[in-house]
Amino acid sequence: MKWVYIKDLKGYLGQDVVVKGWVYNLRVSKNIKFIIVRDGTGLLQSVVVKAEVSEELFNSIEDLTQEASLEIHGTVKDCERAPGGVELAVKGFKIVGKSIDYPITPKEHGTPFLMENRHLWLRSKKQHAIMRVRARTIKAMRDYLDSNGFLGLESPILSASSCEGTSTLFACEYFGEMAYLSQSGQLYAEATAMAHGKVYTFGPTFRAEKSKTRRHLTEFWMLEPEMAYYDLDMNMDLIENFVSYVVQTVLKECKEDLIVLERDTSSLERVKAPFPRISYSEAADILEKECPDFIRGEDFGAAHETAISQRYDRPVFVYDFPKVIKGFYFKESKDPNFVRGCDLLAPEGFGEIVGGGQREDDVNKLLEGIEHHGLNQDDYKWYLDLRRYGTVPHSGFGIGVERTVGWICGVHHIRETIPFPRTINNLRP
Amino acid sequence: MKWVYIKDLKGYLGQDVVVKGWVYNLRVSKNIKFIIVRDGTGLLQSVVVKAEVSEELFNSIEDLTQEASLEIHGTVKDCERAPGGVELAVKGFKIVGKSIDYPITPKEHGTPFLMENRHLWLRSKKQHAIMRVRARTIKAMRDYLDSNGFLGLESPILSASSCEGTSTLFACEYFGEMAYLSQSGQLYAEATAMAHGKVYTFGPTFRAEKSKTRRHLTEFWMLEPEMAYYDLDMNMDLIENFVSYVVQTVLKECKEDLIVLERDTSSLERVKAPFPRISYSEAADILEKECPDFIRGEDFGAAHETAISQRYDRPVFVYDFPKVIKGFYFKESKDPNFVRGCDLLAPEGFGEIVGGGQREDDVNKLLEGIEHHGLNQDDYKWYLDLRRYGTVPHSGFGIGVERTVGWICGVHHIRETIPFPRTINNLRP
Repeated sequence: MKWVYIKDLKGYLGQDVVVKGWVYNLRVSKNIKFIIVRDGTGLLQSVVVKAEVSEELFNSIEDLTQEASLEIHGTVKDCERAPGGVELAVKGFKIVGKSIDYPITPKEHGTPFLMENRHLWLRSKKQHAIMRVRARTIKAMRDYLDSNGFLGLESPILSASSCEGTSTLFACEYFGEMAYLSQSGQLYAEATAMAHGKVYTFGPTFRAEKSKTRRHLTEFWMLEPEMAYYDLDMNMDLIENFVSYVVQTVLKECKEDLIVLERDTSSLERVKAPFPRISYSEAADILEKECPDFIRGEDFGAAHETAISQRYDRPVFVYDFPKVIKGFYFKESKDPNFVRGCDLLAPEGFGEIVGGGQREDDVNKLLEGIEHHGLNQDDYKWYLDLRRYGTVPHSGFGIGVERTVGWICGVHHIRETIPFPRTINNLRP
Repeated sequence: MKWVYIKDLKGYLGQDVVVKGWVYNLRVSKNIKFIIVRDGTGLLQSVVVKAEVSEELFNSIEDLTQEASLEIHGTVKDCERAPGGVELAVKGFKIVGKSIDYPITPKEHGTPFLMENRHLWLRSKKQHAIMRVRARTIKAMRDYLDSNGFLGLESPILSASSCEGTSTLFACEYFGEMAYLSQSGQLYAEATAMAHGKVYTFGPTFRAEKSKTRRHLTEFWMLEPEMAYYDLDMNMDLIENFVSYVVQTVLKECKEDLIVLERDTSSLERVKAPFPRISYSEAADILEKECPDFIRGEDFGAAHETAISQRYDRPVFVYDFPKVIKGFYFKESKDPNFVRGCDLLAPEGFGEIVGGGQREDDVNKLLEGIEHHGLNQDDYKWYLDLRRYGTVPHSGFGIGVERTVGWICGVHHIRETIPFPRTINNLRP
């Protein structure tokens, strides 16, 4: 008999098939029993009618427990009320693996317990939906870039130097010297952009921050495009088209997952280019009025980001930041106290999801920046070479996968947006 | 005037456009000068005829040096002999960034020098072609899986335990305890496969091996699919279809790059499923006759792999390996001295590119294996849970990105197949 995934059953109406999966739930009454089966692609209502099967089969259903694995066969039938629009009229089943005292029951569990059992928690309906959104978000990101002339080229993870100081770096012994885990692939993406024009790097990045906020992980995934001959305006044009494409694609492809997540999608439907753009100075004018704790010249806190973003119905760019709060590699604005950075703030208080900017292309200004930030010039010799041999104006940005997925899913804590989150307290499983 | 990438110029015949790029080469004679420009998407022959431009413009071309960046404008003309089939009749240009004494000249350089200048070496024609093949290989891998019901879910990089012993692990201090860099995402992919059915993990993996062979990197990228309810035969069916798709897709999409690499593509054209399958015991029979140094029961060396693979015109599977040479997580074969692993050996001496197998799904056998390998059972509690709660037969494999790209490109040393290679001697740039 043919093995069919639940998502494909619609095409097998009236046919006898096998489904291989796990027991998601049981509903039992005197004359009819329902086994809800999951196989990773969907949920299937499997119906066992007492009058239609052997007594032995009917009674053995009581042995099925949550998350027992089973191969179940029967006839596929139309059923509008059932999930997926079909149900299985069961003719028989075989238990593949038992499941005794499965730890995650339908009752409420505390987060520490669920995090300890992340390997099982991933099977739960909500986590399942988030992971599907995650996979499709990453695919949409890559698809957009691949079909717009970008080349995906990975940056190294281990490196002898750091991108922005060493205070939040994880260090590791590397054959007698120290290596650091990448905090960003940007500097390397700048090198490949000089070779290929438009590139992106995708990979894990690391911050040894002791923050315990709901927006921080020690290990998170970033996608970082970098474009030769792009200035800041072209960069923002690209970002808004990219983000709009990703959100609209996921909205279309993950409809059912977003329903499971009870996500109000109306605000996501509005995410279409162009996005409003305000300078840091304009944002500071607003914040000085609205947030007594805001100090002009300093970086935004979460509350400040929310105060700005709630004024708009879609993501908003803030650009041209004070030089002192940004990395050494940003290009100076016309006013040399500012640099050509741009952050994109998501609506609904989800905060910064993109950080980008135009890079300094003048070797002497870059040297000043490296000295000013107290960095070791030797570590950046290769990076300076990019300005010595055919420098060009160039820009790029980084988008955090987990923050983007959290925003799209409407999930409060970022730890639910990655299969196995790493935080200051979580290195297992 | 419109900025056009070189790859798109064919669509602008007769029009005036700007190209933004770098000087790749100059050919100068008395009455005509050729500037070969690269912009990451191709090479463009730009022609300056003395009689058609100002004397000042004609003479200033001598100032252009290798890798100087420039914006050049003119009329796009048909030219069959030129790369890309078009040339630019130059009307003017502007130098964007100088390039004085560019280190990598058309003369031969030693590998250590090129590795030190990897950030610039990437601009060279051959490296450029390899990186394009790399990006398209990864895209083809992901596309195949995405369109065959797999969900891409990343495994963690930092972890409190190791997959296969700690002797070749990079360790890093993690808020007061030790964390290890992932050698494989497999164990985590097994957990997500139990939630989603068919998954793959893509990411960097690390081996602190002191090997200096041409087939080893300390940091390399792996793609690892994992499938619930798959046995070894289904796994091999999948692998051969997957590898065939990837090779045939790259052959089609990277024709010009493979010409640059002078790759004889006839052997790649033969890479079509099904692939021959021989057991380890059959392979050992062959090797005992052909390789005096081979010892039955031990793992293959590079020479052994070549001796086997050269007997076939396409990749060959070896399956059912002696238990003692494989990881603790392999499922036993019918003969309990063997396990259900499968390696795929590429032709032409490129060796193993895929390692896969069916996983042990019996919790007691797995416990024996963990004890036998001297591993700490507590580290694997979560992994054992996958067998305690609804265990199912399952299989998966890992394919090394760099080895695959090396094979497709016909590149001898794996260090040229990744943008910034990491080996025992290379942590920079």
